[in-house]
Amino acid sequence: MKSITFQPIGMIYSKHTRPHGTPIQFSGAKNDSGEIEIFPEFQDGLIDLEGFSHIILLYYFHRANFQSLTVKPFMDDAEHGVFATRSPARPNPIGFSIVKLNRIQGNRLFIQGVDALNETPLLDIKPYVPNFDQVEADKIGWLENNIHKHWTTKDDGRFIK
Amino acid sequence: MKSITFQPIGMIYSKHTRPHGTPIQFSGAKNDSGEIEIFPEFQDGLIDLEGFSHIILLYYFHRANFQSLTVKPFMDDAEHGVFATRSPARPNPIGFSIVKLNRIQGNRLFIQGVDALNETPLLDIKPYVPNFDQVEADKIGWLENNIHKHWTTKDDGRFIK
Repeated sequence: MKSITFQPIGMIYSKHTRPHGTPIQFSGAKNDSGEIEIFPEFQDGLIDLEGFSHIILLYYFHRANFQSLTVKPFMDDAEHGVFATRSPARPNPIGFSIVKLNRIQGNRLFIQGVDALNETPLLDIKPYVPNFDQVEADKIGWLENNIHKHWTTKDDGRFIK
Repeated sequence: MKSITFQPIGMIYSKHTRPHGTPIQFSGAKNDSGEIEIFPEFQDGLIDLEGFSHIILLYYFHRANFQSLTVKPFMDDAEHGVFATRSPARPNPIGFSIVKLNRIQGNRLFIQGVDALNETPLLDIKPYVPNFDQVEADKIGWLENNIHKHWTTKDDGRFIK
């Protein structure tokens, strides 16, 4: 099947300048503020976005080093299939975060709850809509016994090139 | 900035063989079942995924026709910036859905709540984890007065090439 090519629409700037010590989920980064710069040619796409309190970011895990279809994730000592984890080191390294949108000024977005590394290429922004994006999930697999760790677990660099 | 290239990891099969009449959100497709075929070379990445009741799909909006940074979405009569909408016709046409995972058989996933078109190229699967993926959003912008339409609104083909 033929490959698919994307072009970044902007950059995410955060205080996380290196993988070590970065929160592993946005839920563990609630107070971490950051900025997004949308490249000027895409700025018109931001019209009316400020009405939303939270936004979905899709971005490129630019530092991730995909090596194997099974990984030992940050929150467990056992290996799992990479698609059963949120590891950045995946066949198509697309990151997904929900962040709080504090305000927009021209082509700059001021955001909060940022777990992405500094200078992460941004691929897409979508409005976060609870009516669409919250489902009642009753099974979280291997995370069931590990979920309590997500507030405090930090990246240790294991998935980075 | 240099472009980023991805390779599909599989295909989504659904009963939605044409855009017209397809639910516009997975919330409007609760009873629509479908299948995912993961290409054999990626099958090991599925290990332990079956423990999760819901999964996040990232896929390529292969039929979307990006033309403008402002769009008139299905659920409103006014134009909005494309990043303030969930329109498929966006600069990087990456789709995002949460579906129910009923079971896995080899490299085939049987899913429910499918709003993707038949034969959609799949880019990534992540486990849906309420602790990560549910945030309290108190503002949904222009959708505030339109959100009630999402259960019943169908695609009318406006974003399709």
